[in-house]
Amino acid sequence: MKLYEKLANDIERQIRGGVLRHGDRLQSVRQTSRQCALSVTTVLRAYLLLESRGLLISKPQSGYFVQLRPGSDAAEAAADAVEAITTPKPMALSATVDVSRLVLSTLRSIAAHDAVPLGSPYPDTGSFPLQKLNRYAYAAGQDPSLRALQTGLPPGHPQLIRQIAKRYLDKGQTVDPAEILITLGATEAINLCLQAVAKPGDVIAVESPTFYAMLHAIERMGMKAIEVPTHPEHGIDVDALAGIAASQAIAACMVMPNFQNPLGFVMPDERKQTLVELATRLDMPLIENGVYNELYYGAAPPRTLKSYDREGLVLHCGTFSKTLTSIYRIGWALPGRYRDQVEKLKFLNTLTTPPLPQMAIARFLTRDGYEAHLRRLRKAYAQQASLMRAIVLRFFPEGTRVSTPRGGYVLWIEMPPQVDAMRLYELALARGITIGPGHMFSVSDRYRHFIRLNYSTPWSPAIERAVITVGKLAADCMR
Amino acid sequence: MKLYEKLANDIERQIRGGVLRHGDRLQSVRQTSRQCALSVTTVLRAYLLLESRGLLISKPQSGYFVQLRPGSDAAEAAADAVEAITTPKPMALSATVDVSRLVLSTLRSIAAHDAVPLGSPYPDTGSFPLQKLNRYAYAAGQDPSLRALQTGLPPGHPQLIRQIAKRYLDKGQTVDPAEILITLGATEAINLCLQAVAKPGDVIAVESPTFYAMLHAIERMGMKAIEVPTHPEHGIDVDALAGIAASQAIAACMVMPNFQNPLGFVMPDERKQTLVELATRLDMPLIENGVYNELYYGAAPPRTLKSYDREGLVLHCGTFSKTLTSIYRIGWALPGRYRDQVEKLKFLNTLTTPPLPQMAIARFLTRDGYEAHLRRLRKAYAQQASLMRAIVLRFFPEGTRVSTPRGGYVLWIEMPPQVDAMRLYELALARGITIGPGHMFSVSDRYRHFIRLNYSTPWSPAIERAVITVGKLAADCMR
Repeated sequence: MKLYEKLANDIERQIRGGVLRHGDRLQSVRQTSRQCALSVTTVLRAYLLLESRGLLISKPQSGYFVQLRPGSDAAEAAADAVEAITTPKPMALSATVDVSRLVLSTLRSIAAHDAVPLGSPYPDTGSFPLQKLNRYAYAAGQDPSLRALQTGLPPGHPQLIRQIAKRYLDKGQTVDPAEILITLGATEAINLCLQAVAKPGDVIAVESPTFYAMLHAIERMGMKAIEVPTHPEHGIDVDALAGIAASQAIAACMVMPNFQNPLGFVMPDERKQTLVELATRLDMPLIENGVYNELYYGAAPPRTLKSYDREGLVLHCGTFSKTLTSIYRIGWALPGRYRDQVEKLKFLNTLTTPPLPQMAIARFLTRDGYEAHLRRLRKAYAQQASLMRAIVLRFFPEGTRVSTPRGGYVLWIEMPPQVDAMRLYELALARGITIGPGHMFSVSDRYRHFIRLNYSTPWSPAIERAVITVGKLAADCMR
Repeated sequence: MKLYEKLANDIERQIRGGVLRHGDRLQSVRQTSRQCALSVTTVLRAYLLLESRGLLISKPQSGYFVQLRPGSDAAEAAADAVEAITTPKPMALSATVDVSRLVLSTLRSIAAHDAVPLGSPYPDTGSFPLQKLNRYAYAAGQDPSLRALQTGLPPGHPQLIRQIAKRYLDKGQTVDPAEILITLGATEAINLCLQAVAKPGDVIAVESPTFYAMLHAIERMGMKAIEVPTHPEHGIDVDALAGIAASQAIAACMVMPNFQNPLGFVMPDERKQTLVELATRLDMPLIENGVYNELYYGAAPPRTLKSYDREGLVLHCGTFSKTLTSIYRIGWALPGRYRDQVEKLKFLNTLTTPPLPQMAIARFLTRDGYEAHLRRLRKAYAQQASLMRAIVLRFFPEGTRVSTPRGGYVLWIEMPPQVDAMRLYELALARGITIGPGHMFSVSDRYRHFIRLNYSTPWSPAIERAVITVGKLAADCMR
């Protein structure tokens, strides 16, 4: 445990034990620093962590005060402490999608710079078991059965398919292994699922903001997007979606019900059910992007839309890229009643998924503590989310609002409307820091004062300084 | 050297040295077998090899006779000895493409059976340096630079791109490394090149017969195909293509000018030039599938269409799957003036190509005797082509015609029209032998009495028996 965590836990015990009471003012950072012989940064970080746990609030010019509301959940309290992200207004018309050039150039500048990767879409891989996987891949490459695998065709390696089905089962969801198709990451899974249910020119409903991978799938096939208002805590507005579908043909709806990128929400179960019911009534395929499903901060994994689906209308997509290795690019699709079309499209698109990475992951899942690895990740991400959230609230311009992620590893930040995220992106890049400008998450420019920050990298003074710098640059942008 | 090769070489020396002269009758197989203390099969194989070298002909009921035409090239002589494959008539209309289900089910039954893989589209990997590549991949996986590569984006790994450019240069073709895009095998390269230049519903000109990978790319995007008469020795009929293009809009033309699958021809250089000139006049993109280019039997590598292109209209595709490893699925595109569109589509389609296989191949190319490996392959394939060709001519029903491959590893066989290739496929599969039915190579049923045989597996009694069995089954089909 790090020093600041230890200090935070000590103070939390004093609060829980009644030594410090609601409304009490804490010693200043400097006083505690002297008294405990800890650096100012360490104490500040401990206070911020407690703030993120909903146990302290900071009042400008006055200091830190104990804020204890009995029975309240820390994350809820933290969420309530600031205004929620603005829910966008409905869009009148569908739009042609053309975001990929912006996304590619942004990702490229992120990759090209040895910068603090706050703008990265990828998880930090420092804790990923790359060496173990590499050894399994090597062993698979020595396997005499390998020569037969050159003729490997969809659906994919049977051992991996079994392991994936087992993981769903462990979470209480029964999945037919025969439905699973292995793909080149979730990217290909999402692309093929969409291509199976809609054709060029069709209108696809998406969340607003939406993960640009969804927009890419629409752009790839020359389809159109219509953005549906999406609540920062409860997800896509099902009534609004129904209204849109009543006035025009919607070929499919693409959503990310759990730990949505960039908002981080989990759709409440009853909303998930309502959405699947609407889709069933309309006979409208739902493409469910579940790539962060394993990265939940709560006690139990969230339910999927797929688990409510009785008609095979949900095409569910997953991946190992966010939790195990992103260089292997192994994802999968559970395409419901569209399985055979998706399989045919997979065969047409890339023929087959390379066997060695599939075999390496299957061996790792069978033998090597994936659950323990995930538990560590979840705990670390939850804590890093709190810390980054606290820093943003403290150092970004007044009026900034921040998402409260329930899983995954990104924060969505709404800044005052004067701050242009592309300008901020340029300024930050000049300081060796990358951020994800809001422009990438919509076909409109409604998120031009939003940014996405990645908190998957273990907390460090460098990360903290980078977030503070971005906050100060944002303030500069307002002048 | 195997016994039958030694015997064949001995007899060839006797012929070349004048001991045996044109028209001389050889001893019967049985006599030679007794005299040399060799098995009947060994002697038969030696005679067939000499037949394939154009030095013997067999006359039914009479035996083998020396056939020496001074100055004639053996392959030419062999080609002249039988009637050429029929060149198809032009097609009046373009057609919707829907061959992938047939191809997938055929490939699947090939993969599922522990059968003689005469129907396989893949090269035999027995001589491929899989172990070396596996060690390089492992070393790459240990490389500290790897963590940075998770953000690897198109165009691909710079080291591999350099090596590919260098290979073109070694063959006398200057290629700008900045034009090269690494893809998931040639499959993805061909798909994206086609998608970059044409849209759903467009008409694409293809060879007849055509490699089904081309038809798949057309089917994937809901385009239409029109088949252009293709000469079994000289390739696509450029005049016929010009005629078609004069009467309807052709969005692109897809060809395989070198070692075409299934015909095995090389387009003569002047025809290549004429084709590129036509494309330039029409401003019509040419997609050049060059996946077998390294597998030439002649003294020098064949020229590419790309090498004649001055306008960036040729989109050239290559792969390592046919010569080095098919499980890594590393191909590339040189998309000419469409480079940026193809790169964007690559990003949209699969985001990135996994880095480890790229690094492993790059390291192998730098250090480990790719050229020596290719020389061995070329020599073996050329000899196996001759042997299989000789066996087919001897044991298939009268009237059977066989292609004369100049490279690659497949033979195209035209049987009498009464033989239905799908029926033959079923019969052969029941005997543990797979073949490639002609139905897969066209949108029409004009190749229903054709089959494709793969001769990449080292020659063996089992292969020989399998070819003979298919020939006898074909004869049965005529009853």
